[in-house]
Amino acid sequence: MSGKKIGILTGGGDVPGLNVVIKNVVYRSTTDGHEVTGVRLGWKGLTDLNLDDPESRKRYILPLTRENTRTIDRSGGTFLHTSRTNPSKMKKLPSFLNPQNFPATQTTQNGQSVTTYDISKHVLCNLEKLEIDHLVAIGGDDTLSYAAVLDKLGFNVIGIPKTMDNDVRNTEYCIGFSTAISRAKDAIGRQRTTVGSHERVGIFRVFGRDAGYTALYTAYVTSIRCGIPEYEFDLEHMIDLLMTDKNNNPSNYCLVILSEGARWKGYTVKEYGEPDAFGHRKKFSVAEAFSDEVMQRTGAETVVSDLTYDLRSGGPDFIDTLVATTFGTMAYDAITSHKSGLMAAVYEGKFTMSQIPDPKLGPRRVDVEHMYNTDRYRPSYTSKEGLPLFLTHP
Amino acid sequence: MSGKKIGILTGGGDVPGLNVVIKNVVYRSTTDGHEVTGVRLGWKGLTDLNLDDPESRKRYILPLTRENTRTIDRSGGTFLHTSRTNPSKMKKLPSFLNPQNFPATQTTQNGQSVTTYDISKHVLCNLEKLEIDHLVAIGGDDTLSYAAVLDKLGFNVIGIPKTMDNDVRNTEYCIGFSTAISRAKDAIGRQRTTVGSHERVGIFRVFGRDAGYTALYTAYVTSIRCGIPEYEFDLEHMIDLLMTDKNNNPSNYCLVILSEGARWKGYTVKEYGEPDAFGHRKKFSVAEAFSDEVMQRTGAETVVSDLTYDLRSGGPDFIDTLVATTFGTMAYDAITSHKSGLMAAVYEGKFTMSQIPDPKLGPRRVDVEHMYNTDRYRPSYTSKEGLPLFLTHP
Amino acid sequence: MSGKKIGILTGGGDVPGLNVVIKNVVYRSTTDGHEVTGVRLGWKGLTDLNLDDPESRKRYILPLTRENTRTIDRSGGTFLHTSRTNPSKMKKLPSFLNPQNFPATQTTQNGQSVTTYDISKHVLCNLEKLEIDHLVAIGGDDTLSYAAVLDKLGFNVIGIPKTMDNDVRNTEYCIGFSTAISRAKDAIGRQRTTVGSHERVGIFRVFGRDAGYTALYTAYVTSIRCGIPEYEFDLEHMIDLLMTDKNNNPSNYCLVILSEGARWKGYTVKEYGEPDAFGHRKKFSVAEAFSDEVMQRTGAETVVSDLTYDLRSGGPDFIDTLVATTFGTMAYDAITSHKSGLMAAVYEGKFTMSQIPDPKLGPRRVDVEHMYNTDRYRPSYTSKEGLPLFLTHP
Amino acid sequence: MSGKKIGILTGGGDVPGLNVVIKNVVYRSTTDGHEVTGVRLGWKGLTDLNLDDPESRKRYILPLTRENTRTIDRSGGTFLHTSRTNPSKMKKLPSFLNPQNFPATQTTQNGQSVTTYDISKHVLCNLEKLEIDHLVAIGGDDTLSYAAVLDKLGFNVIGIPKTMDNDVRNTEYCIGFSTAISRAKDAIGRQRTTVGSHERVGIFRVFGRDAGYTALYTAYVTSIRCGIPEYEFDLEHMIDLLMTDKNNNPSNYCLVILSEGARWKGYTVKEYGEPDAFGHRKKFSVAEAFSDEVMQRTGAETVVSDLTYDLRSGGPDFIDTLVATTFGTMAYDAITSHKSGLMAAVYEGKFTMSQIPDPKLGPRRVDVEHMYNTDRYRPSYTSKEGLPLFLTHP
Repeated sequence: MSGKKIGILTGGGDVPGLNVVIKNVVYRSTTDGHEVTGVRLGWKGLTDLNLDDPESRKRYILPLTRENTRTIDRSGGTFLHTSRTNPSKMKKLPSFLNPQNFPATQTTQNGQSVTTYDISKHVLCNLEKLEIDHLVAIGGDDTLSYAAVLDKLGFNVIGIPKTMDNDVRNTEYCIGFSTAISRAKDAIGRQRTTVGSHERVGIFRVFGRDAGYTALYTAYVTSIRCGIPEYEFDLEHMIDLLMTDKNNNPSNYCLVILSEGARWKGYTVKEYGEPDAFGHRKKFSVAEAFSDEVMQRTGAETVVSDLTYDLRSGGPDFIDTLVATTFGTMAYDAITSHKSGLMAAVYEGKFTMSQIPDPKLGPRRVDVEHMYNTDRYRPSYTSKEGLPLFLTHP
Repeated sequence: MSGKKIGILTGGGDVPGLNVVIKNVVYRSTTDGHEVTGVRLGWKGLTDLNLDDPESRKRYILPLTRENTRTIDRSGGTFLHTSRTNPSKMKKLPSFLNPQNFPATQTTQNGQSVTTYDISKHVLCNLEKLEIDHLVAIGGDDTLSYAAVLDKLGFNVIGIPKTMDNDVRNTEYCIGFSTAISRAKDAIGRQRTTVGSHERVGIFRVFGRDAGYTALYTAYVTSIRCGIPEYEFDLEHMIDLLMTDKNNNPSNYCLVILSEGARWKGYTVKEYGEPDAFGHRKKFSVAEAFSDEVMQRTGAETVVSDLTYDLRSGGPDFIDTLVATTFGTMAYDAITSHKSGLMAAVYEGKFTMSQIPDPKLGPRRVDVEHMYNTDRYRPSYTSKEGLPLFLTHP
Repeated sequence: MSGKKIGILTGGGDVPGLNVVIKNVVYRSTTDGHEVTGVRLGWKGLTDLNLDDPESRKRYILPLTRENTRTIDRSGGTFLHTSRTNPSKMKKLPSFLNPQNFPATQTTQNGQSVTTYDISKHVLCNLEKLEIDHLVAIGGDDTLSYAAVLDKLGFNVIGIPKTMDNDVRNTEYCIGFSTAISRAKDAIGRQRTTVGSHERVGIFRVFGRDAGYTALYTAYVTSIRCGIPEYEFDLEHMIDLLMTDKNNNPSNYCLVILSEGARWKGYTVKEYGEPDAFGHRKKFSVAEAFSDEVMQRTGAETVVSDLTYDLRSGGPDFIDTLVATTFGTMAYDAITSHKSGLMAAVYEGKFTMSQIPDPKLGPRRVDVEHMYNTDRYRPSYTSKEGLPLFLTHP
Repeated sequence: MSGKKIGILTGGGDVPGLNVVIKNVVYRSTTDGHEVTGVRLGWKGLTDLNLDDPESRKRYILPLTRENTRTIDRSGGTFLHTSRTNPSKMKKLPSFLNPQNFPATQTTQNGQSVTTYDISKHVLCNLEKLEIDHLVAIGGDDTLSYAAVLDKLGFNVIGIPKTMDNDVRNTEYCIGFSTAISRAKDAIGRQRTTVGSHERVGIFRVFGRDAGYTALYTAYVTSIRCGIPEYEFDLEHMIDLLMTDKNNNPSNYCLVILSEGARWKGYTVKEYGEPDAFGHRKKFSVAEAFSDEVMQRTGAETVVSDLTYDLRSGGPDFIDTLVATTFGTMAYDAITSHKSGLMAAVYEGKFTMSQIPDPKLGPRRVDVEHMYNTDRYRPSYTSKEGLPLFLTHP
């Protein structure tokens, strides 16, 4: 088999490892005589692409070769750039498209009526004109959910999961997770020196609005307390645990890591500042709010450290490179085996092709009963026998 | 000469390299038959020390030996811990001291009358009872200013400057500065991947309320724009420069670094939230405020990344280890030469013992005329011949 | 259940992650009211231990507590130190033991007759006097093989596999492997700059006398050629592949990684220098020998870079910390479930307790058919579906 | 002033920071309307360049722009590649040149008569045809010595010193030195864990055939013993010091770093293996020879770790970026001020333009009296006041 044309795109937030997937798909494809077309800026590269406009073509389409992908695996981010566009839920169409040609849906968001368009027809038309036979879509829930739509519309598509939150369903591992924990582990390791020197309560915050994997696994490998979105903790008990840690520590400090979406009983997110154009005000981070509570209730000094963009920056670590390489090669093998609608995944510790998850199910979340110690507000350290390497089930 | 007893303490914010100084003073002292007494928690270890109370003694005094300092130079922070106490401006006295025994001063802070006490008498008494002949005080402006007080009171004291802002007067270099720039340079290098993948305006913020050295030198070695406290920039011009950078960049992103104290013409710091016990509300960071302006004026997406505690965390880099080692050994040589009131320093590119700076002069600040390009909002890259290695004069 | 006394030791070459295991066993044990005794220097701590001699006791026995293990997980190496002693094959007994009391075996090594003693009786006696009920032995093949001996003698023992070669049987993962690959990947990433600037053939060598996992996985994540002990390559073909890589590379360089035990058809290890006390001469490294061949046959410049002790140095990476934590807790759970003779392991992608491997089987080796591309002298990149996360079967 | 054409090349061994210089020269030049021509592969790019041959032109000449140098400063090595060619001492001429057209010199090397040619005439001819007005030559002694030749021949040339050995005369600092020490410091910091776990004598070897700066400064910032080419140590005394260190260390290990050119009284370099085409046999490294002596005399186990190519690999650290940026901008300022024959330098702690050093003087060497403690075989830690930041005089 040769002469296929394989498209590839990356959507949603970038993570280290995306370029490894891209390079592997390109190298395997060109070895076998197939062409690879890079679609730039995620789904936007297919929604906003006007093939009649050379500028648009240049912005959104990049033929990929061994030459232009040779060194990309050494850097993080995505060589193809990314966006958060979903072709079936477009609020605003590119100017060259007429809204009347596409099915519209009315929804209500924050009390306001919103019209969205499904321009899949245009996407399929672009794919056809580009002569792309198969598409590899790399992304998180959102990006993959549209891959599932395309599959239902009969287009050949294979998904690859990425997100530093590790919260895509039907897989135990998403590209970017290991590097995120590696970076968080290193940052906390370094910052112990300053938290300790000042004898403070160190409060770290990481991304994770719905799923606490990043906070939980960082806590597991740094032996500190954690708060996750899946479990509302008791504020007094958490502070008691921390102050006891601090007293027991000859260096008189303690550490806790909170997911962005962590909360305690009675906690309400505070907002501040003026509303922006969409009526949104800024939100207090949970780490700042928790810090206020600690200071107020104990008089202890705190230090709040946000571990955010750094966790998704730089090159991929060993595991992300290994998994991204393997996912890339599995996606390629699936394509050449005429499969569609599947996602490269890890299931029960093994590489497998699983179904692209149903977006209605929402993100995969931490199994509190088995993984989080609700008495000690830390990961569970018992009964790991039988669990897969990433200590979790999809 | 042998048989001296040398005290050593670290005050103010910690930086990597403090332990290197401590170890070097201990090793040189013990080689020559002197003893070294570690005073814990900065000046607080002399103000709150009650020698009649064994618990207090244990908390504040630690005899230093080759054994207990052998490995400390491998870690950042300060093995002796630190605080921000100033014995001549105590708002609250330890319970075992009677305020009536100490001179009091009334000042007005934020519209409220405040009484502070100068308990130098108690500090000197403790030093005498501890039989400390000479003291090495490592710290920033605040810590060193009290060293100058002690010197005037006739006590033998040698200062060593540290601060990641590099803003202590009478020296071109303070311990912690190089490591801070190293960390900031690495973080920005890593985060290019994510700012670029999303085609955003990346806004970094670093410590530096009064002096912009950290932002300026980071900009110098990463080739990005910067805003510093010493120069009020024009908001529109800065945004123009950045949007031009973005358009000229094939990866369609741009970067700027702002000191905590940077500002533009017309900028006022916004506050938010409820007042705390001292009547203080939280302040918007300048990076967030700048981000709001960029989004509002250009519609571009931004990403704000705070480089704060990480810059002072972890072990010292090569230069901080080299300078800390050298400052430690110079302090020791000054002590054994019966000098007092001096500070280890770098002046015109050379190691020297300078005067402990007069606190009234405030922090050392960037020489805008020679070091900052007020047209291009970046460091000046011309006419470096004749400047010392750190490109600045004290 | 409380009141047990658990012993723990580390044998063979150190790797990052050993201290993580030790700390976890100590923390879980003390939580449940058990004591932990650290045996220093591997099995030597039980063979050379003379309990009547306080100096010997001090050298070989260290009671472990939360206090003295609190920070050890932040460093690599082993806090308990290590040795390569095998109590059932002692060539030389400690002076306080009489050889006549122990069974002796005559073997022939390098043409010389050698007597070895099995002093298990003494080991068991020491364990009894120390009142150790269960022992956790962390090590590679050699260390674990004696754990199997102790199990057969009726002593309760649990093994934990470690080795940066990842070549212990009955497990897909040994502590230290991920960190070794992480370090090798980083080093090769850095050294590309210098190999490329000089347009050379870069030849890296890593440990691995019998098993090529370290070279193979490093090659997998850096996309370079490799030679492994399990497959004799053809010298001309390898050089052809490399020179083609070099010519195709716009930067005009190429890279290959060789296991210490790699070889080509017709290769014989050269020796040099004078024989040492044991009659051994130094051996040419395969990388140097290969470099000579490349230079001679092609005239190309080469650079040989040994990645040796650095791969096992420093702290453990995320995966090694995760696995070491989990192995430690599994070993503890096995002990409290009255199990013996088992080893913490990963099997088919899942954590499990397996049998301590039979030393007669020798090290686990790369499955050449499925993992090594014997045409391209690089890892196989196809058909990964169904394989466990570490891409291999035990 | 505009419209100049500036050439730039890098010669000798690469170090991190070269690309920073190149980028800065290009950016400043293009800002002012000058063109920059990159000469590839050092002086070879001018000796082997046949302007009549498009292939040769492509291989050796690369016009430099903001676009093609925008990201090069993020990587180590040299974007322009490098070689060790010296146009005034060519052993072999490119085939398109007739040896009879160039002055020849007969010398004797290793007992064999060698003819070398000075093809400066050809070099000048190429420079003229390329319309290059000024040349920036970045390199060590060898590369710079030919820059001095060109200057004497009336061509405008500015030198920039680089070498991780820091041994170029007339400057206290060469690009690459700080990064080399940073890497060595990190490697030794990491390897302490494995040397300690095995209770060994750790012997590190670094480049430095004639000058011991790299070993000495690494020793200064890691507090270990060192041997340098400038001082023949006493073998027994060194081993005594090390065994005393080991005994005094609670972890029972010790460390020493040796320059490649270090030696002890009575030491002779041993050779091994078969002679190569030039009659050269391989040389025992001094670290291996020292290791043999330690094992033989004390029975202690040793570990030899070569820190070689890694020290010059990867990106430049903060100081190398700062100095490379500054040297680049100084070279540019010198060119636009119509200067020639000068070298960017650091002298007495300040940036200056100094003379390109006279190659007859050989490399700059460590001032043993002030910098090396000949009793303790370690750096001198006393009397640093008055020394420049890099603790040395040119």
